Amino acid sequence: MRIGFIGLGAMGAGMAAQLLAAGHEVTVWNRSPEAAKALEAKGARVAATPADAARGEVVHSMLANDAAVREVIENGGVLDAMPRGSVHVNHATISIALAQELIAAHAERGIGYVAAPVFGRPEVAAAGNLNIVVSGDPAAVQRVQPLLDTLGQKVWPLGDDPIRAHILKIAGNFMIATAIESMAEASALTRSYGVSAGDFLEVMTGSLFASPIFKTYGGLIAEERYAPAGFKMSLGFKDVGLARSAAEAKRVPMPFASVVHDNLLEAMAAGDGDLDWSALARVAAGRAHLKDR
Amino acid sequence: MRIGFIGLGAMGAGMAAQLLAAGHEVTVWNRSPEAAKALEAKGARVAATPADAARGEVVHSMLANDAAVREVIENGGVLDAMPRGSVHVNHATISIALAQELIAAHAERGIGYVAAPVFGRPEVAAAGNLNIVVSGDPAAVQRVQPLLDTLGQKVWPLGDDPIRAHILKIAGNFMIATAIESMAEASALTRSYGVSAGDFLEVMTGSLFASPIFKTYGGLIAEERYAPAGFKMSLGFKDVGLARSAAEAKRVPMPFASVVHDNLLEAMAAGDGDLDWSALARVAAGRAHLKDR
Amino acid sequence: MRIGFIGLGAMGAGMAAQLLAAGHEVTVWNRSPEAAKALEAKGARVAATPADAARGEVVHSMLANDAAVREVIENGGVLDAMPRGSVHVNHATISIALAQELIAAHAERGIGYVAAPVFGRPEVAAAGNLNIVVSGDPAAVQRVQPLLDTLGQKVWPLGDDPIRAHILKIAGNFMIATAIESMAEASALTRSYGVSAGDFLEVMTGSLFASPIFKTYGGLIAEERYAPAGFKMSLGFKDVGLARSAAEAKRVPMPFASVVHDNLLEAMAAGDGDLDWSALARVAAGRAHLKDR
Amino acid sequence: MRIGFIGLGAMGAGMAAQLLAAGHEVTVWNRSPEAAKALEAKGARVAATPADAARGEVVHSMLANDAAVREVIENGGVLDAMPRGSVHVNHATISIALAQELIAAHAERGIGYVAAPVFGRPEVAAAGNLNIVVSGDPAAVQRVQPLLDTLGQKVWPLGDDPIRAHILKIAGNFMIATAIESMAEASALTRSYGVSAGDFLEVMTGSLFASPIFKTYGGLIAEERYAPAGFKMSLGFKDVGLARSAAEAKRVPMPFASVVHDNLLEAMAAGDGDLDWSALARVAAGRAHLKDR
Repeated sequence: MRIGFIGLGAMGAGMAAQLLAAGHEVTVWNRSPEAAKALEAKGARVAATPADAARGEVVHSMLANDAAVREVIENGGVLDAMPRGSVHVNHATISIALAQELIAAHAERGIGYVAAPVFGRPEVAAAGNLNIVVSGDPAAVQRVQPLLDTLGQKVWPLGDDPIRAHILKIAGNFMIATAIESMAEASALTRSYGVSAGDFLEVMTGSLFASPIFKTYGGLIAEERYAPAGFKMSLGFKDVGLARSAAEAKRVPMPFASVVHDNLLEAMAAGDGDLDWSALARVAAGRAHLKDR
Repeated sequence: MRIGFIGLGAMGAGMAAQLLAAGHEVTVWNRSPEAAKALEAKGARVAATPADAARGEVVHSMLANDAAVREVIENGGVLDAMPRGSVHVNHATISIALAQELIAAHAERGIGYVAAPVFGRPEVAAAGNLNIVVSGDPAAVQRVQPLLDTLGQKVWPLGDDPIRAHILKIAGNFMIATAIESMAEASALTRSYGVSAGDFLEVMTGSLFASPIFKTYGGLIAEERYAPAGFKMSLGFKDVGLARSAAEAKRVPMPFASVVHDNLLEAMAAGDGDLDWSALARVAAGRAHLKDR
Repeated sequence: MRIGFIGLGAMGAGMAAQLLAAGHEVTVWNRSPEAAKALEAKGARVAATPADAARGEVVHSMLANDAAVREVIENGGVLDAMPRGSVHVNHATISIALAQELIAAHAERGIGYVAAPVFGRPEVAAAGNLNIVVSGDPAAVQRVQPLLDTLGQKVWPLGDDPIRAHILKIAGNFMIATAIESMAEASALTRSYGVSAGDFLEVMTGSLFASPIFKTYGGLIAEERYAPAGFKMSLGFKDVGLARSAAEAKRVPMPFASVVHDNLLEAMAAGDGDLDWSALARVAAGRAHLKDR
Repeated sequence: MRIGFIGLGAMGAGMAAQLLAAGHEVTVWNRSPEAAKALEAKGARVAATPADAARGEVVHSMLANDAAVREVIENGGVLDAMPRGSVHVNHATISIALAQELIAAHAERGIGYVAAPVFGRPEVAAAGNLNIVVSGDPAAVQRVQPLLDTLGQKVWPLGDDPIRAHILKIAGNFMIATAIESMAEASALTRSYGVSAGDFLEVMTGSLFASPIFKTYGGLIAEERYAPAGFKMSLGFKDVGLARSAAEAKRVPMPFASVVHDNLLEAMAAGDGDLDWSALARVAAGRAHLKDR
């Protein structure tokens, strides 16, 4: 298939490579051209502008946040360049407010809009093993299904309304944040009684909590390996903010989100915004002054 | 081996049955005699008093809380009846303060004290598939190791100090409480956007959160199946209280524990103390008035 | 002096009337014309557009929120209409982000910008008894000082930077919200032991907490007199949001703000957004199910 | 009147001196004898044991906490020494659980029990200017009314049930804690925008919050004068704990109490338990890393 792929960050680069490997004709665009070069070597056509990447049957985009989506997709000419009847697959984690704008803007132009946010870290993306949640117009979803199957180990269909996949992604990231905070507080407690985070979390993540999220972040906490970040505090703060905004709009109190918000803010105040967000464990331990004991 | 087993509640009955099935000579005691009767049919000797059950080489006890342990073990004559050199295996989830008392009381009498709290619900106990965390004097632990291997699918050794297993159990139960609260808030959010708890949690517990705790409690939340309770709100409140007390003693702030404490209290104020603690999802949904929408 | 006054809500109407009574020549504008009519009877000139009210030496504005200020002052032609060298006195409670925009926009046009947010409810405004915090260019402040003295029983000078008065107002409103929440929780506690909110708060507000805020809101809580609202839940939510946004921008965790945010949200979810924000007491009492006891 | 006075700490010493100055015959007892010596010089008789101080018509006690009341009043022989028909005036801030015990113990012995907790710091006590809340059997209260009038600038009658005065005192101290936390967070916010705590709190405590509590603690926060402590963190922690226990017993969620609990715990973890509890402002500022900016 002729595909455009916009946004070649740590996640997007791996995803685009998977699509190339599957034999698709992929035109890529990225703000900084280095990432595009690397894909050219794998057979991609490199576009000079986002709009140039938007002339195929399907355009995937994997951009960092609302601002990037607004700049590149809405204002960067992508929507105007896309042919009527083509489909835009949006993999980004964005606000519900922006999702609603995008839905309207696509409908106006007769372009299909498929929400397809992904769960997984860069190495998972590169291996085509993402979990992808997808919702949107059934015909559009059906057309891009093979592409999604290439990108993910599992694609979770969520119905017709693109908002459904977006809110699920937001709620899912909130759950990840709370998993980290839970391990952070619990291991501060065990440490105060002489049981290391490693000893404690080995048991928990080897039994009742034996799942990818707890194993990954439990390992980082046990080793206090917060840099280089797989996912930065500041990005986590943004994502918890998306949950908070979505909750506010619908009047849903979320006290755990408030706690995580406050703790991420404290970490950023301490200058730790570029650490991995598993460093919430450092906030919990710092508050108990465990290092001084 | 000649064993005493004290406390035949939903958990203890299944554990004692496993020990019988493994060929041990087990003398049991329980406050209400019916549970003992059932085990008599499986070959147990029934003791008239806790002290009568305490004359073997090893005494297991699986009691509900601090008060029960104080009444039966400390004041009920068990410690005085146990022979010097015998070993007491305490499976209960108790406070650190009581654990410290017990350690001293056993040492004084020359009785071994092994802390061996368990993770798992009644059906898991009955199948001998518990996760057991164990710490205490190495010689004592070594003697009871075969018994623990009978009771658990996995025994996690944690070193010489019995406090270590007790605090790990307390911290672990705190993590379970936060897992429930996280799913409660996250699914209130998705529901407010039209995605049912079932649709949402199926994705999460089938991917990043695919672990026993999330699957079990996620299922209960999805089906709003809060009665009969597997583990009651009021017991969860007690366990979060153990974490809070332990944290207070060591000056460890735990804001998530505060949130869960407040929410469990709200549920009990609503008269829901006998529901399963997964009904924290009802608190979160109630606060957002989802039913009225 | 020749003055423009823009925004004749419950607060602004009383303030403009004070300026008229002090002998100033006041041109008023309000979105809905009724309020302007009432002031015409007191001697005001009524402007057809905001810009028409902006031709004097000094323009006061008392608008409801960021959106209204943006629409009327920035986009409604007020700034363009104001003569170079004139002074704009902004009484509104606005975000720090908007304040920064306004400072720049005024500087560009050579118009003085004086931040002069007020504390006090409508009846206080009508009596000229407001507390006014003021900051801005000293020359501009000096010119409007007599006008501020007319409006307030006390004017608190805060220096050259307009941000100072704005942040003080935001932090002050946060303190009011916490005062209400504190009384709400404390009186839920005393009520659960049979001491009415009235009995309890009479003591507190007659002794250690004998200040206007506690007397006013304590009285409303004691009588459960939440409608008609003096200050609505939804406005309180907006103001706590201003504190939260300002705090977020500077990385200042404020856990009390998080609690109040969540509780106001719960009230709005219950359909109580139009009640006075002292109805936070209803949230606290509801959570404890005091009515059902 | 012949009076006993037990407990001559910073508060009790001043109170006993007031009773002496009013012409009563006062027998005093204190754990450390120095404080009693000082009162001997003012005309007090010094008792060798608590029981010796308990032989008059009325016994006042002003002890530090539950443990001291249990040791001195319940186990120290005071109740056994008091004549039938005499009255015990308990000024201490104690738990509701202990108050219930005391009520029963007094009733059993035919001794009147008057709950009369006080609000005010030591200098206020020494000047006879306390606020006293009082409840208990009306006849008993009537007998001690003149003594209370001597001790307080104002005595607030609360009815027949001693629990009423005790819970009011607990709820009142909770309100004080929240007032401090509110100023702590709000001034962290203003400081992050360059407005000092002093500038900010001068306005607030000179206008809407012009009450003794805000002036006293606002002043301490403005000057960061946390030592010597007027009221220590660790005592504040105990008092917030009384509110939390009382609330837990009646199933009343109090999220502000949870926040203050966590923050006091953090201060104590930092080794600041002996500072004045207004140093909650240091916790808030520390969390925002204001010193490092």
